[in-house]
Amino acid sequence: MVEMNGHMEQTGFEVGVVVSKENTEDETNAISCMQVLVSELEKAGLIVESVYGMSDDFIKLAAPVESLGRAATELKLKKPTYVGMDLQFEWDQVAAFVRQPDGSLFSWCERFQCFHHLVYGIVNRTQSPITLRYDGKAFEWKSGESLLKKLETKGIVKRVFPLHDEAKRKWLLRNWALNWLDFSWQPIDEVYSYYGTKIGTYFAFLGMYTKWLSCPAAFGLTMHLVDFGSWQLLALPIFFIFTILWAALFLQFWKRKNAGLLTRWQISYSGESETVYKAVDTDRGSFFQPHEDAKQLRPGEKPKEGDKNFQSEEWFWRLMRFRNDVMVVMGIICLQLPFELAYAHYYEFAGSDITKFGLTAIYLLIIQYYTRVCGKISVKLIKHEHYKSVESRADSLVYKVFGLYFMQSYIGLFYHAIQYRNIASLRQVLIQRLIVSQVFENLLENSIPYLKYSYKKYKAVHKKKGESAVSTRKSLQLVFRVEKEYLKPSYCASVGEELEDGLFDDFLELALQFGLIMMFSCAFPLAFAFAGVNNLTEIRIDALKLLAILKRPIPRAAASIGAWLNIFQFLIVMSICTNCILLVCLYDEEGKWTIEPGLAAILIVEHLLLLLKFVFSHLVPEEPAWVRANRVKNAAQARDMCSKQLRSLYSMEKRRDE
Amino acid sequence: MVEMNGHMEQTGFEVGVVVSKENTEDETNAISCMQVLVSELEKAGLIVESVYGMSDDFIKLAAPVESLGRAATELKLKKPTYVGMDLQFEWDQVAAFVRQPDGSLFSWCERFQCFHHLVYGIVNRTQSPITLRYDGKAFEWKSGESLLKKLETKGIVKRVFPLHDEAKRKWLLRNWALNWLDFSWQPIDEVYSYYGTKIGTYFAFLGMYTKWLSCPAAFGLTMHLVDFGSWQLLALPIFFIFTILWAALFLQFWKRKNAGLLTRWQISYSGESETVYKAVDTDRGSFFQPHEDAKQLRPGEKPKEGDKNFQSEEWFWRLMRFRNDVMVVMGIICLQLPFELAYAHYYEFAGSDITKFGLTAIYLLIIQYYTRVCGKISVKLIKHEHYKSVESRADSLVYKVFGLYFMQSYIGLFYHAIQYRNIASLRQVLIQRLIVSQVFENLLENSIPYLKYSYKKYKAVHKKKGESAVSTRKSLQLVFRVEKEYLKPSYCASVGEELEDGLFDDFLELALQFGLIMMFSCAFPLAFAFAGVNNLTEIRIDALKLLAILKRPIPRAAASIGAWLNIFQFLIVMSICTNCILLVCLYDEEGKWTIEPGLAAILIVEHLLLLLKFVFSHLVPEEPAWVRANRVKNAAQARDMCSKQLRSLYSMEKRRDE
Repeated sequence: MVEMNGHMEQTGFEVGVVVSKENTEDETNAISCMQVLVSELEKAGLIVESVYGMSDDFIKLAAPVESLGRAATELKLKKPTYVGMDLQFEWDQVAAFVRQPDGSLFSWCERFQCFHHLVYGIVNRTQSPITLRYDGKAFEWKSGESLLKKLETKGIVKRVFPLHDEAKRKWLLRNWALNWLDFSWQPIDEVYSYYGTKIGTYFAFLGMYTKWLSCPAAFGLTMHLVDFGSWQLLALPIFFIFTILWAALFLQFWKRKNAGLLTRWQISYSGESETVYKAVDTDRGSFFQPHEDAKQLRPGEKPKEGDKNFQSEEWFWRLMRFRNDVMVVMGIICLQLPFELAYAHYYEFAGSDITKFGLTAIYLLIIQYYTRVCGKISVKLIKHEHYKSVESRADSLVYKVFGLYFMQSYIGLFYHAIQYRNIASLRQVLIQRLIVSQVFENLLENSIPYLKYSYKKYKAVHKKKGESAVSTRKSLQLVFRVEKEYLKPSYCASVGEELEDGLFDDFLELALQFGLIMMFSCAFPLAFAFAGVNNLTEIRIDALKLLAILKRPIPRAAASIGAWLNIFQFLIVMSICTNCILLVCLYDEEGKWTIEPGLAAILIVEHLLLLLKFVFSHLVPEEPAWVRANRVKNAAQARDMCSKQLRSLYSMEKRRDE
Repeated sequence: MVEMNGHMEQTGFEVGVVVSKENTEDETNAISCMQVLVSELEKAGLIVESVYGMSDDFIKLAAPVESLGRAATELKLKKPTYVGMDLQFEWDQVAAFVRQPDGSLFSWCERFQCFHHLVYGIVNRTQSPITLRYDGKAFEWKSGESLLKKLETKGIVKRVFPLHDEAKRKWLLRNWALNWLDFSWQPIDEVYSYYGTKIGTYFAFLGMYTKWLSCPAAFGLTMHLVDFGSWQLLALPIFFIFTILWAALFLQFWKRKNAGLLTRWQISYSGESETVYKAVDTDRGSFFQPHEDAKQLRPGEKPKEGDKNFQSEEWFWRLMRFRNDVMVVMGIICLQLPFELAYAHYYEFAGSDITKFGLTAIYLLIIQYYTRVCGKISVKLIKHEHYKSVESRADSLVYKVFGLYFMQSYIGLFYHAIQYRNIASLRQVLIQRLIVSQVFENLLENSIPYLKYSYKKYKAVHKKKGESAVSTRKSLQLVFRVEKEYLKPSYCASVGEELEDGLFDDFLELALQFGLIMMFSCAFPLAFAFAGVNNLTEIRIDALKLLAILKRPIPRAAASIGAWLNIFQFLIVMSICTNCILLVCLYDEEGKWTIEPGLAAILIVEHLLLLLKFVFSHLVPEEPAWVRANRVKNAAQARDMCSKQLRSLYSMEKRRDE
């Protein structure tokens, strides 16, 4: 431990750098780049530990809080202060900045940002290039060039990744993932400080959702067990109304809880994206800095109303986004919808089970391919859009891709319900989906990463064995924790790895489940109970996956569950409509109820218009770009002012002390 | 003009104080209270001009900017600065505060607040009571007592009211109210600086609404004039869809425009109620200071999550409000609805025109009474609620009272449309309503205040004549502008004078018109053209009313059109549903279309749930009270910090200058 300024704070080894092993033993006296790297990292103020693994070498990095503080000052990190405002971090004013709930100065997300800055900030500060040697070959490290970037392009440094903190990991494993006594309790604050805001928020949401589910689950169970006799037909609509009100209240209370969590975690979210969304992007280690509108203004310049630049640019980007959204929606409606309907139709008509099986196999193959292609297209489309932050970019992707999955998951069920009015078989399909797919998914979620890890480990060991067949068997096991961690798969999304991490899949699973139980609540009230039980295990399984099976994910600083909240809201509105259709099917089993085509058309127009009304409020932003730019500029000015004030206060105090 | 600090700024005579004339000519040497008042007002830094009117005496007040600045400092007025933050006004840092678009330091609303503070801030600063004399009777002005309050309770000072600025008034009259050349143009910035934010916003909204109306008006006119033949039945739904999209876009663009206006007027609205809502209440001159949650915290205390006080108080007030809303809604549904339906029903069945006329007379009598009683009840209910500001209190009243008028205006029309499916007669009623009521209302709006004014003038002159029958006829006309202004009626609402001013009636008229044209757009597309023409005159008539016929209203500092925006949104959603019903009636003239009662019930449940879903998001606040309190406290701290910084900057500069 390093002691300075009365602080005794130091991180554990939280970041690892993977360096390829040299194949040839070099006997010359030229400096190896591993040595250079280690000494440079030490010079940057990091605490370094080298580990010579089986197939690769590793450098483990820890940092005294002073180094992190220096990096944060250079990064101009904004942090909440006791003044009540987010200010740029200054190491000499450290006492003014609010500490995390666990007592540390920086959150994990900020720490990782600082580590990243320190590691990639190592440049050749001499005037002349330095010659480095690797595998017998020499290359030049030019003046002003980043060492890490150079080594990455040469393929020498394979990856910079966050390491697990063994003590905290074990504590979480014991108290969270493997805590089978109290199902509903989660150490959310600890999860937040270990994994960052986004994952902390996910588990808080999952936990609250699971708790709230107990209510409709109990109701649904009663509906299933008790025979209401002639009241049965009245019980269903009551259950339907109850679930809708329940869901609306749940989301509203979640927003409250979210606001509370952010305040507890010292994250100010009201102050626009500029303070919140500063995310480190994926494993590749590149930073997406938020693109601020205010940047387009030179200092002292004031945005004017009706500034043509602002106006036209704002509308251009909005139109681009609108065009892309239309493309995605058209793609889903024109390509996916007929395909899904065709599958559902032929499946009904297929005589033998073998045909059905074959049909399903073909369907799964095509839909898999289609989903992947569409995901790729969506990612490409989004790259041409213009967003204020990585998080809003990710949100846009989420909307687009969710459309796809929405069609895929529900259209077959609808077809079934409306075409055949066969509630019993619909119920069967729902049970299949709920049990089979959720259990199956949970298994896959954990087993596939584990198998991947095992294979990688086997390969690494095998490769080593081939090279040095002489050495004893015993040494041919992985002994270093850091090497094991490197071989573990990373937490990534099945779609658009660049923009989202594994949370996408977890949230998608949750949203599809929510849609399933809500949209068909009249057909199958028991679904809530299934979902509740499933989510209880889901919490533990997701926790286990993150703690034991995967690399520690790169922290993301999003303040809310983002796009998913809107998706949940949309699913509630949808479920009002679908349950009404289901009720019609239930009450009118013989299909006696007729509806005039004119009336049907008017009803469809009505629902479309109601939908459009609420789409419109998202289409046209409430605040023109120049107003926003003005506001951001004002906030920045006020922050500067406060920083000055802080500095003068501290210098005054120092003078007084002297 | 008074010159100080290089500023040559001074207001015109903007505030008038009305003092009762003494009946007996007093010959003793004791000081009269009029003299005391004048000298005290002069001591307070105001520029005073006494006017001896016919039935009352008047004191006209102007203020050099320095006096206003001093008052603003004492009031701790928050004003936007060039630093980018709203700070407490300090007279010695005047250069740091952003000026109004017209170059003055204070807006009219701020000026009036300062005047008010100066006038009511006159207290007896001596240790002993001062004896004043009025009408031969003496009374004591106690130490520390406000002179104006004392005189008001004694009935000597009748009123403190804002005066018109003759030059500006004439300019506005010429360029705005009587500018018949360019119908669509309004000098919004000048209106804002003369009347304050709320009235400025109203006219901006009215202007934009009128301009946007031209589009559906043209479409509606085409629909009316061109015979589409067999396409006629298709044209209506297209027109319907068009109007809905038009209305949704209009409101969205209005929000943008509103944000733009506020930025131009240097009003920061994002920073919660505390900066924006500082309204001076009605003519009585009492101030409603915003009740802030943060007040409940002692300095240094931090609100804790789950603080039971915060939690229970928040929910208690919310429940109270909910109970009140439920009471109002139940009152409307259980009392008004049957009554309206009964009237509509009997009106149809009434044989002769005389019966109809009698029925309408009784109806109007009862409904007038009912509305007034309900308005009073609403005002009473709201007094038991707990709001952050006068504006949100007024909004709550607006919602409650609008419910009343909504039922009153539309339920008869609905009954007509649905029961008799007689579109032609519905159209007739709509024309009647649009033309007769709007023309009638416009006439009333201007003539009633004018008649009131004339009557008051006559009475004042007559009284004088009775007293001094000897004096010549010529002197028996009102010669002083200030006396004429005092006799003019004030701009007040027909309901709840304490909470709203005349804008309530103007907005109500606008909202009812919007509802009428939107909700029945399929039955009568021409209505948009009528409304457009009406609004063009409405702008001028409202302007004329404010400029020529009424007292200058007390400025209100609301940042938006408040509750009315939500009411317009609600009307759009309603109009989607009503137009669908109208379309059904139109296409199904013979009533052949049947609908199963089960299906009808399900459709009603669906619509109710969709409504409830969106009511819920207003019912449960997104932010718990403790989070909000925390935020407000933080903002206040940051502001203090910035103020200190500003002061130190200025003192440094001063030192440098020395």
